[in-house]
Amino acid sequence: MLRKKIISRFSIRNKPGEVPGALHFIGEQKTDSPFIRNMTYDVKSLAESPKIFSNYTSLLEKLTSENVNWLDIEGLNDIKLMEIIGKKFMLHNLLLEDVLNTTHRPKIEEFENATLVIVKMLSYNKIECSIVSEHISLVLAQNTLISFQEVEGDVFEPIRERIRHSSGKIRVKDANYLLFTLLDAIVDNYFTIIEHIGEELEKLEDLILANPSDEVIKQIHYYNRQMIVLRKAVWPLREVINGILKGVGKVVNDNNELYFRDLHDNTIQVIETIEMYKDTISGLRDLAFSNISNKMNDIMKTLTVMSSIFTPLTFIAGLYGMNFDNMPELHSRYGYFAVLGVMISILITLLYIFRRVKWL
Amino acid sequence: MLRKKIISRFSIRNKPGEVPGALHFIGEQKTDSPFIRNMTYDVKSLAESPKIFSNYTSLLEKLTSENVNWLDIEGLNDIKLMEIIGKKFMLHNLLLEDVLNTTHRPKIEEFENATLVIVKMLSYNKIECSIVSEHISLVLAQNTLISFQEVEGDVFEPIRERIRHSSGKIRVKDANYLLFTLLDAIVDNYFTIIEHIGEELEKLEDLILANPSDEVIKQIHYYNRQMIVLRKAVWPLREVINGILKGVGKVVNDNNELYFRDLHDNTIQVIETIEMYKDTISGLRDLAFSNISNKMNDIMKTLTVMSSIFTPLTFIAGLYGMNFDNMPELHSRYGYFAVLGVMISILITLLYIFRRVKWL
Amino acid sequence: MLRKKIISRFSIRNKPGEVPGALHFIGEQKTDSPFIRNMTYDVKSLAESPKIFSNYTSLLEKLTSENVNWLDIEGLNDIKLMEIIGKKFMLHNLLLEDVLNTTHRPKIEEFENATLVIVKMLSYNKIECSIVSEHISLVLAQNTLISFQEVEGDVFEPIRERIRHSSGKIRVKDANYLLFTLLDAIVDNYFTIIEHIGEELEKLEDLILANPSDEVIKQIHYYNRQMIVLRKAVWPLREVINGILKGVGKVVNDNNELYFRDLHDNTIQVIETIEMYKDTISGLRDLAFSNISNKMNDIMKTLTVMSSIFTPLTFIAGLYGMNFDNMPELHSRYGYFAVLGVMISILITLLYIFRRVKWL
Amino acid sequence: MLRKKIISRFSIRNKPGEVPGALHFIGEQKTDSPFIRNMTYDVKSLAESPKIFSNYTSLLEKLTSENVNWLDIEGLNDIKLMEIIGKKFMLHNLLLEDVLNTTHRPKIEEFENATLVIVKMLSYNKIECSIVSEHISLVLAQNTLISFQEVEGDVFEPIRERIRHSSGKIRVKDANYLLFTLLDAIVDNYFTIIEHIGEELEKLEDLILANPSDEVIKQIHYYNRQMIVLRKAVWPLREVINGILKGVGKVVNDNNELYFRDLHDNTIQVIETIEMYKDTISGLRDLAFSNISNKMNDIMKTLTVMSSIFTPLTFIAGLYGMNFDNMPELHSRYGYFAVLGVMISILITLLYIFRRVKWL
Amino acid sequence: MLRKKIISRFSIRNKPGEVPGALHFIGEQKTDSPFIRNMTYDVKSLAESPKIFSNYTSLLEKLTSENVNWLDIEGLNDIKLMEIIGKKFMLHNLLLEDVLNTTHRPKIEEFENATLVIVKMLSYNKIECSIVSEHISLVLAQNTLISFQEVEGDVFEPIRERIRHSSGKIRVKDANYLLFTLLDAIVDNYFTIIEHIGEELEKLEDLILANPSDEVIKQIHYYNRQMIVLRKAVWPLREVINGILKGVGKVVNDNNELYFRDLHDNTIQVIETIEMYKDTISGLRDLAFSNISNKMNDIMKTLTVMSSIFTPLTFIAGLYGMNFDNMPELHSRYGYFAVLGVMISILITLLYIFRRVKWL
Repeated sequence: MLRKKIISRFSIRNKPGEVPGALHFIGEQKTDSPFIRNMTYDVKSLAESPKIFSNYTSLLEKLTSENVNWLDIEGLNDIKLMEIIGKKFMLHNLLLEDVLNTTHRPKIEEFENATLVIVKMLSYNKIECSIVSEHISLVLAQNTLISFQEVEGDVFEPIRERIRHSSGKIRVKDANYLLFTLLDAIVDNYFTIIEHIGEELEKLEDLILANPSDEVIKQIHYYNRQMIVLRKAVWPLREVINGILKGVGKVVNDNNELYFRDLHDNTIQVIETIEMYKDTISGLRDLAFSNISNKMNDIMKTLTVMSSIFTPLTFIAGLYGMNFDNMPELHSRYGYFAVLGVMISILITLLYIFRRVKWL
Repeated sequence: MLRKKIISRFSIRNKPGEVPGALHFIGEQKTDSPFIRNMTYDVKSLAESPKIFSNYTSLLEKLTSENVNWLDIEGLNDIKLMEIIGKKFMLHNLLLEDVLNTTHRPKIEEFENATLVIVKMLSYNKIECSIVSEHISLVLAQNTLISFQEVEGDVFEPIRERIRHSSGKIRVKDANYLLFTLLDAIVDNYFTIIEHIGEELEKLEDLILANPSDEVIKQIHYYNRQMIVLRKAVWPLREVINGILKGVGKVVNDNNELYFRDLHDNTIQVIETIEMYKDTISGLRDLAFSNISNKMNDIMKTLTVMSSIFTPLTFIAGLYGMNFDNMPELHSRYGYFAVLGVMISILITLLYIFRRVKWL
Repeated sequence: MLRKKIISRFSIRNKPGEVPGALHFIGEQKTDSPFIRNMTYDVKSLAESPKIFSNYTSLLEKLTSENVNWLDIEGLNDIKLMEIIGKKFMLHNLLLEDVLNTTHRPKIEEFENATLVIVKMLSYNKIECSIVSEHISLVLAQNTLISFQEVEGDVFEPIRERIRHSSGKIRVKDANYLLFTLLDAIVDNYFTIIEHIGEELEKLEDLILANPSDEVIKQIHYYNRQMIVLRKAVWPLREVINGILKGVGKVVNDNNELYFRDLHDNTIQVIETIEMYKDTISGLRDLAFSNISNKMNDIMKTLTVMSSIFTPLTFIAGLYGMNFDNMPELHSRYGYFAVLGVMISILITLLYIFRRVKWL
Repeated sequence: MLRKKIISRFSIRNKPGEVPGALHFIGEQKTDSPFIRNMTYDVKSLAESPKIFSNYTSLLEKLTSENVNWLDIEGLNDIKLMEIIGKKFMLHNLLLEDVLNTTHRPKIEEFENATLVIVKMLSYNKIECSIVSEHISLVLAQNTLISFQEVEGDVFEPIRERIRHSSGKIRVKDANYLLFTLLDAIVDNYFTIIEHIGEELEKLEDLILANPSDEVIKQIHYYNRQMIVLRKAVWPLREVINGILKGVGKVVNDNNELYFRDLHDNTIQVIETIEMYKDTISGLRDLAFSNISNKMNDIMKTLTVMSSIFTPLTFIAGLYGMNFDNMPELHSRYGYFAVLGVMISILITLLYIFRRVKWL
Repeated sequence: MLRKKIISRFSIRNKPGEVPGALHFIGEQKTDSPFIRNMTYDVKSLAESPKIFSNYTSLLEKLTSENVNWLDIEGLNDIKLMEIIGKKFMLHNLLLEDVLNTTHRPKIEEFENATLVIVKMLSYNKIECSIVSEHISLVLAQNTLISFQEVEGDVFEPIRERIRHSSGKIRVKDANYLLFTLLDAIVDNYFTIIEHIGEELEKLEDLILANPSDEVIKQIHYYNRQMIVLRKAVWPLREVINGILKGVGKVVNDNNELYFRDLHDNTIQVIETIEMYKDTISGLRDLAFSNISNKMNDIMKTLTVMSSIFTPLTFIAGLYGMNFDNMPELHSRYGYFAVLGVMISILITLLYIFRRVKWL
């Protein structure tokens, strides 16, 4: 059941008292064997390695420091690979620990030889109708960008295409620009999710206005929780990009500042839309509750009208059902019809009153 | 259906992985062919071009750098025109991308050759009863102000009149003052909308106090959502004007600071009024809910009074409708009238009690 | 109807596209012809002009720059007078525009030749039971203080008395101290209103605890809206006095800083009391809602008790009202009395149960 | 009635237009004749005056500037005494005005010859079951500390004992440390009140869980208001102590900084506990409301079960009470018993259904 | 009963007027006799003392200033021991007072000879189903770390193991790193609790969706209060670690900064998860309330359907139970069956109507 994950995703951690910086994978394992691939390019040349699953060392030896290297690791559960990469790029163990902790919140941190950027890739799983969050770590070590993904993904494929076809400025620029490109792809993905939720909220609103069934409150609850998940992923991203703009890790420079500022704008827009949706959901909840109240009112009205009309009539009928010896009306010739007349006048009077107070 | 747009307006974005800075129109296309017009003026002279739909280049060549030029483009879907203007004024592609992204939030950004100000023009569509938001981009490049509007609009027409008749100080001042004038016209427009909503809220309050029908909660929901839209447009505007006052893009100078400070005051006042309306709407919701509760109470009271009065009476009638052989009361001469008397006393007693507890 | 004004008071503005700085009165016109009067004093001398309605120029010529002048204009709708004063003291048109815009929020602004302080005088209209807000502008130009009021008022009369009788330090001090005195009188007035509302809230609380009629929710709504009005007037005042203390317009100096700090204390106290009242009102609303719920519960209890007691009894009566030929009980000698006994035992049992669950 | 005071305590002020700095007592007068006493001490000597009610001047003349003097005035309504003290220590009139205004909020203010600290002493009045707030002003003028209390109090008695017995460091230290000691005693007193309220809230929670009578909501309302009073007294105290730590009035020095920091910690703890109680009260309100709802549900269930069972049975009885000539069932030998059987089966079926849906 | 403690835990303090800095234990005494043990280590050597209960002095004399000493005191109620330690390390009395005050909030404070860090160890008591908070004080005096625990605990045992087996870097590093290790163990413990609560909330959500009994609201109340307790423990911890990172007590240096930053990340994650849980709980409350409303609606529907169906039928039966002499229908041959037919049609019609409005 998916709901389970939403709550527990952020709470798994290493056991109390463990050595800090010890490498072990934290979270839900999503793939069996990781693979690794590399693109080395500059404005003129491009060398692309195939996906490989072992024999990493030869691949790592080929990396050159003149060109931009993009090392992409998909799958996090091979601790040995992590240690090899760590050694090759002289990465701090705490950095690798954060890469392996898929429950870690988005952040940017500058280490001695590298800068670590952690973000969450969100995608919408249409089968389970839920937001799936993937832990993405981007490590910038000089001119090499290492991207760690939890599973084999295709969201960076368009960027690979752009590198291959040298479209845009990507081949002219350095690894910092590549970092920007990856972050931009991730943020663009948020817009897809947000747009999807926007459409769902519209449908929900129509549903509430048309027929507020009990299901509606559960759905509101469900979207509210998705907003909580989204918020947890996106709010810290703002700090990350603010950090970049303030110069953490020397990622930003005169050539790419405008791009990171643009990214910042987009992140703000995602955040504002999420907040707007939270307000909208809260408005929908009020609307749904008021509709439930109105339904109750309608039920009560029906009950009251039916009871109020028939109670006096039944009393009158009961009255003349009494068995007293001396009840003169019973023996009058038109007594029955007179009583019927009285009943009909009471009925009409009550109907008129209920119509006036708008209960009918 | 208009409501749809309110939710989705802010969520459309370019596809993940696309080249950043690539020019394409984002949003809902509102016009077919854009046109362009120009006013070139200084204190003595004024040259006004007619609206034209093609042959932009000749118009662009006539721009002089001594006088103030106001280039007004209405309609955003001609990418080629954008590229020509971009080349002419050496504008960064990211600037043009923001101009074309009608979902972008208001902001001010300083580029190398120009300063971009994005704001939202709001107008009230009386037929659809909704707030319509238009994306306005103002680009200040030296002494030229370029204004981009989504559709042909008439809100800047009074300013054109002032330029033509040289009324006020507009002909004496530079392009920065022209920027102020356009922003001032937009903010003044917000007041119109706010005043309109204020009147609607008054009517709504009268309605709630008079006759709280179910429709009322839906209307409150509707106005609440309009407030969300307004807020999204106006809050970032404050940052924009703060940015100007802090010197972004060197828009502000000794000659016009007072005017921009006045604009700032007005923006604050719009924001405060929106917040006040949010409070008011929330108060109205409480009032409406309490009225619904009171209606329920009235219904329950009626039911209770009717049931409580007739239940014992009907019981008594039923009692003497029993067919036991030996029921002495039935044969007493005045039994029937005695029972009627008892019933009437019960009725009076109950009516008295209900009146004392204020249910009647 | 007064409520109308509460909502719309802050929303009237000049028409979009108008020349900024053009003088015209904005708001609701409250007086026909303004008048003007002047006090010129120093520690030794005092010259007080009578109220005059025309021939302003002679009065303005008599102003001396050695002594403190207090020019008091009551009534804002004489644009010509404004222009004369503006010319005499070389005031910026934007300053005069703010003076004439009775919807402008409180602020302090330093212009070249003068400092403008805008505040709201609040008074309680006992006939209409509402808070009336008056736009007061105080302009400090060297040693002259010009006060603009919307209507002829008497709140500054005690200050005039103090000047006439040279009581306190007012005659020894400069125009800045006079500004303090006027602001102090206005803030003291806020306390009167706040005290009045405090008393009303006490009465309301007593009412809710005693007899929560439907009227109560409307009153809570009404006081909540008055709090919104008060807040809009007082919150910006804090910024104004903070501005003075920070040196805007060089109003504050070694001689009067303690007085302005005292004023600041008082403003904070007004704000805190308003916030406390908001909390109190929100608590009263909860109390009132819970009382309405309790009333509902009481009604339901009555209904349930009455129905539950008589439903089984009526059933039994109905049972023996059936006309079957063969019903042995009907012919037993004491059947009727046995049934009566059964009914009474049921009655007693139910009464006992309802008393145990505290419904009686 | 005590509740009255809670609301109005903070709203009494001098009349608009009065001379600022004029001395007059503001608030509720709590004592008739103030008295004054003095302790003059250093590490070796201690001179303690008796409580006196008049002839202040001789007492004031005996004060020495070498030793620490603690002048304690209990009762504020002797304006003449105030003026004498003011003259003796050259205190500003605004300082004395704040001392006499028992509605003034806690603050610290540095004057030319003295530093004024205003705090609120809170005590719990067990008879009236309410928090009583007393206005305490502490004036530090060189080596003399003057404490002004509204009524004769015993909260400083333990400190007098410590001075007499030279316990702790109090005799070694200066007047600043004495100020700390008095503030510490006041803050310690807050803990007593907070603990008392904590216990009351526990009792309230037990009551809500056991038997949510209507009284409970009133009590929640009552505690909520006490929290508002507490907050008003304690929040500004934090600013006061922050002010001291930041060097206002040169109260803090290397010898006593640790003590004032400790005091700061305690104040934060009081504030956090108050906030925690506010959350707790709000949680209790939700609990109480939900209990009221549940009670309503129980009532409704009873009503529904009783009505639903007897309505069909009564109908059947009524059916065979009809007087049609031709009703074959009536004449069947076992018709009556068959009908009784049908009734019993209906009864059992309904009971079974109601048990399954958990209404029984 | 445990709930009691949650409220009162933070409110016990020393009596007003007591000497500040006087040593006495505050809080609930949890152990009888404290014991003390010591580890002295550097990279090469390790000397570990056994747990001892008396003769502290010899142990204290053996401490060397070259190696790292970890003095662990478990149990706080031996004031004499405190005084001995205080004298040995020249600790300020206020420091010891905070160590002994188990109600003190987490903080970091730099004293002359030592730095005090106070945190709360939280553990989940499975028997009482509640969070238990333990007061932990860590005193860093040069190369000696003194840890004070309320009771004998085992949470630091893994760290002792690491020291014994020289695993990780702990033996290479100084006492500051030891401080980090202890704090890290405590924060890791928070994750255990948070994960536990996360699982409980999932179960609660399933329960609410399946069968919202009255118990649910009490449980929500209970978890909400646990969140309040957690918050009180964790929020100040962030300030503590921020303080460390900002250089308070010179705890942080180039060698351990990364570790403390990692700790900071973890604390933020705990706080964010707590806030997320608060949101989740609030969403669950809404869900539960709406379910209670729906249950009420279902009850009302049943009542209304039963009453509305049988009321008219019973009336008709009553009508023909009247005893008028002249009622032609009674004597018609098929009158009874006609009436039965009418009743059945009414029944079918009402059932159809109730089905259409979805009440059946």
